[in-house]
Amino acid sequence: MPSETVLIIGGGPAGLYAARGVADLGLPVVLVEKREHLGGTPMASYYASLTPHLEDAGTAITRMVNEISNDPLVEILLQTRVTSGQGDLGDFHITVVSKSGETRELRVGSIIVATGFDHFDPGRETQMYGYYEFEDVLTLVDAEKMLKEKRFVRPSTGEPPKRICFIQCVGSRDRRLGNLYCSKVCCGVASKEAIEIKELLPDAKVFIFYIDMRMYGFWEDQIYWKAQEEHKVNYIRGIVTEVLRRGDTLVVKGEDTTMGRPMEVPMDVVILSVGMVPSVGTVEIAKILHLPRESHGFLETIGGPLDTVTTAIPGIFVAGAAAGPKDLEDSISMAGTAAMKAVSSIRRLMRQSAPVATGGGGE
Amino acid sequence: MPSETVLIIGGGPAGLYAARGVADLGLPVVLVEKREHLGGTPMASYYASLTPHLEDAGTAITRMVNEISNDPLVEILLQTRVTSGQGDLGDFHITVVSKSGETRELRVGSIIVATGFDHFDPGRETQMYGYYEFEDVLTLVDAEKMLKEKRFVRPSTGEPPKRICFIQCVGSRDRRLGNLYCSKVCCGVASKEAIEIKELLPDAKVFIFYIDMRMYGFWEDQIYWKAQEEHKVNYIRGIVTEVLRRGDTLVVKGEDTTMGRPMEVPMDVVILSVGMVPSVGTVEIAKILHLPRESHGFLETIGGPLDTVTTAIPGIFVAGAAAGPKDLEDSISMAGTAAMKAVSSIRRLMRQSAPVATGGGGE
Repeated sequence: MPSETVLIIGGGPAGLYAARGVADLGLPVVLVEKREHLGGTPMASYYASLTPHLEDAGTAITRMVNEISNDPLVEILLQTRVTSGQGDLGDFHITVVSKSGETRELRVGSIIVATGFDHFDPGRETQMYGYYEFEDVLTLVDAEKMLKEKRFVRPSTGEPPKRICFIQCVGSRDRRLGNLYCSKVCCGVASKEAIEIKELLPDAKVFIFYIDMRMYGFWEDQIYWKAQEEHKVNYIRGIVTEVLRRGDTLVVKGEDTTMGRPMEVPMDVVILSVGMVPSVGTVEIAKILHLPRESHGFLETIGGPLDTVTTAIPGIFVAGAAAGPKDLEDSISMAGTAAMKAVSSIRRLMRQSAPVATGGGGE
Repeated sequence: MPSETVLIIGGGPAGLYAARGVADLGLPVVLVEKREHLGGTPMASYYASLTPHLEDAGTAITRMVNEISNDPLVEILLQTRVTSGQGDLGDFHITVVSKSGETRELRVGSIIVATGFDHFDPGRETQMYGYYEFEDVLTLVDAEKMLKEKRFVRPSTGEPPKRICFIQCVGSRDRRLGNLYCSKVCCGVASKEAIEIKELLPDAKVFIFYIDMRMYGFWEDQIYWKAQEEHKVNYIRGIVTEVLRRGDTLVVKGEDTTMGRPMEVPMDVVILSVGMVPSVGTVEIAKILHLPRESHGFLETIGGPLDTVTTAIPGIFVAGAAAGPKDLEDSISMAGTAAMKAVSSIRRLMRQSAPVATGGGGE
């Protein structure tokens, strides 16, 4: 008989939502997470609030964790990694190893991969924004951590900054780096952080240097207009070529493409809007499960826009940013669909195998 | 006992995918569609191909229709409308009326609303783009229909046009019209159509006038770069204020915001990138089922980014563009999640009601 258990790899928002979905449909789940805690990147990177609705990230993600933690159908294995896998839909054999070295063999019917993304390393291949040279050059992630503590300061002085800018598309839309895609969420996250900075420091001037603002759908008025109209965030269409230090101030150099002139503006803090890259975990799992990756390096789905979660291997589905740059809505919707697909593919197999189990000749 | 049947309202991509999902999970579906055929807007509006992967729309959607048409768990009611509804999760009482006037009462356990969007009417409130005055001013939808026939001509002459432009954000991001949101898909669809026009008419010049190109995720290189590099589509960041006719040519007037100068360019065909508005069916269903609409007029979901399909009424879920501007991936992922939610909410109720049915006091 096929195994009814669904293995979910990764305990971020997509993995948590998928786990709840599978359990709500009545099948057992084993959720494997390599970190010490559930919650994925929003928790591990100390996100302050979620985009676009600004709910406290800790509260929201903890709620998701609590929803599955007491479900008798969900077994959670923390600090555990998948080290090998083989088999087919209904009969996958997976080896997992805990941090303490304990090995366990799992037999599962279906697998949902929700291994997420890593943030682009802004020191990679280029130092032109000075991330590793200047203390006051941050990433979206560093800024998020300060915002979580409700204390936004200039790291070099510990004082509140007067002039802050975001530089968009760091590590995205960049042929030189090989990251051709847009990372989708950075425009929204930067705008959200800009709002939060202005709430903490109403007198500070906040600038966002961008190529296109990808504020699709309701983000347009819920975040983009709100940032400009209620919080006086300044959006400047421009290309930043370099961040320098002059005395104790950072200087952002580039071109204001709307005004058509070079710009050189002093800043106390510069925040690099780093994009998404395939996570180390995603690359590892692709190798272990022999899952093809698409041209940008994320896990490949095979159904185009009409099937967002099915991989080339029957019984293995993907949810969230393991499959490419995704916002939270994308990750959650994919996770619910992956749960549906994992359960229905196992149930179909059980219907097919039931008569065989009683000695019948099959179809 | 609760009803196990899931009612799906709307037979477009989201409704079709949700129907398949529910049936694959083993529960019966009644799919109600007001049109004569399944397939929703892609079929009713004669889409040529789907964004971003350019698969023939008829082929792709027909495949989805075929997948559910022979499923014994799916009953399809065409040319049928929902006229009233009441009840609760597990016990909704719905009246549907067919075009021939036949009334039928349905008892269903859960409902998925997938009533889609309507295209913005470019004649509404403003005639500055001349849609109803000039034969050679089209919408994305009109262009799609010609592209489906692989024959792209200037309507006034029947000859191939030499200069074609798209005007983005018609009916979107527009406070004057009250449509504050970005319609999300128009940048991608216009770029896709531009590629298809250049494939048919390699010598034509194709321009896209835009504010921001919202080519998020893989659309960046899969469509946006492809249009520019392989097909020489010209993207001009500009605001078009007016379309005039001069002799037998259209004249597009506005401002090139990158060059910072007024522009006045002759065109043979102008294509208006009309956005999404809540469909008539969505507004009707909201009234009938007492579903709250959010500030832009679409159906409201209550879970923020961490729950994309749950409405204020337990047992009623929404999928696709009934809930706001959505691309195909969004609609499909929401539909799979709505299927999961509809089935699991019924199953939970059945588990709870089982002991009651045998006379127990139960919870």
